Amino acid sequence: MPVAKPAFLFDLDGTLVDSVYQHVLAWHEALQSERIALPVWQIHRKIGMSGGLFANMLLRETNLEITPERLDRLRSLHGAAFRRHGVTVRPLPGAVELLKFLSERGVPWAIATSGRMETAGPSIASLGVDPARTPVVTRDQVEHAKPDPDLFLAAAERLDHPIEDAFVVGDSIWDILAARRAKALAIGLLTGGYGESELERSGAFRVFGSPADLLKHIDEVGVRR
Amino acid sequence: MPVAKPAFLFDLDGTLVDSVYQHVLAWHEALQSERIALPVWQIHRKIGMSGGLFANMLLRETNLEITPERLDRLRSLHGAAFRRHGVTVRPLPGAVELLKFLSERGVPWAIATSGRMETAGPSIASLGVDPARTPVVTRDQVEHAKPDPDLFLAAAERLDHPIEDAFVVGDSIWDILAARRAKALAIGLLTGGYGESELERSGAFRVFGSPADLLKHIDEVGVRR
Repeated sequence: MPVAKPAFLFDLDGTLVDSVYQHVLAWHEALQSERIALPVWQIHRKIGMSGGLFANMLLRETNLEITPERLDRLRSLHGAAFRRHGVTVRPLPGAVELLKFLSERGVPWAIATSGRMETAGPSIASLGVDPARTPVVTRDQVEHAKPDPDLFLAAAERLDHPIEDAFVVGDSIWDILAARRAKALAIGLLTGGYGESELERSGAFRVFGSPADLLKHIDEVGVRR
Repeated sequence: MPVAKPAFLFDLDGTLVDSVYQHVLAWHEALQSERIALPVWQIHRKIGMSGGLFANMLLRETNLEITPERLDRLRSLHGAAFRRHGVTVRPLPGAVELLKFLSERGVPWAIATSGRMETAGPSIASLGVDPARTPVVTRDQVEHAKPDPDLFLAAAERLDHPIEDAFVVGDSIWDILAARRAKALAIGLLTGGYGESELERSGAFRVFGSPADLLKHIDEVGVRR
């Protein structure tokens, strides 16, 4: 039996576009507006998980009551702050080239993000990706976001590709954990600011520096040049 | 011969005040103004090193010529951006309490930062530290900043305390590396956003979560309650 060809399921923020730190400070500003004190690095480590779990984390770390109304306000404050910070967001080195390479080789790929289409839209556009032609699964389309496996399972389904033969590519431990739940192998990238061993400890199959670095070593994950 | 009492030499940004991410995005904006493309996480990993070495890093990673004029412009752009971002900077959890505890116990401590007094001033003030009474060594006062050992050596000298009996407390690998050059033991804090094993691999003697966490375990580093 021949080995199945791989597909690639990409996280968006911190993996294809350089937006993690802007999201982090946007959350920090939103929390400060609500007089919720949380050190910035702790926000950084929670970015990429679902909004509901993020709220539970806030509750746990601050002992404040996080009502649905407060969470709505926080989301909207974060959105406004991110729109200000977002002007500095760019594709990560090699991201556009990597996606182009996969498309040219006929390797299936999709994007699966814990963000909503509203915030993810401009980032996806900056990559030159047309959501009408490329499967893009956003938070709006699944019940549970990362670290639950739903987003990656939905993305594989959209590609009509078995999840077991897919690589998930992500920058945060939430991507890696969700990939493992989904039974995909996870490739970690350093571009979100996690350390190499944080990604390895969460179960990354490989860790590369950037999309460019992954493209350079693409034959090591089953794509022949 | 009785064991010498410890002294504590603190880094400032990311160790006592929650300012690393604001510095990171301020540098990112400054670099974008000069059309220098560098992913944000790479800036994060270089924060805390001396400005001269930071410029060499830029040269190495981007292959652009970094003239003294360009470096001056970058510094001034960073300063302006940081003044905007800096309004969200707060002392880290437990920082004020830790310094107060050490003062009350008569344990000598000082601050040693790669920043200049101009940017460091407001952060120091937010900690309730009076530079007239507490030794504060800034970049302006030594020849080489971190990861060279000069800042910590100067801080120990200001305390008239042997550096070998001092703990350096910092959040970045540049603090840890400078501490080792200086022959001090280094305590790493996670508050700058480095992963635990990045700090351990650079040679940290211990790693704690925050100044509050260090205060809670202070008897493990030679200060009796």
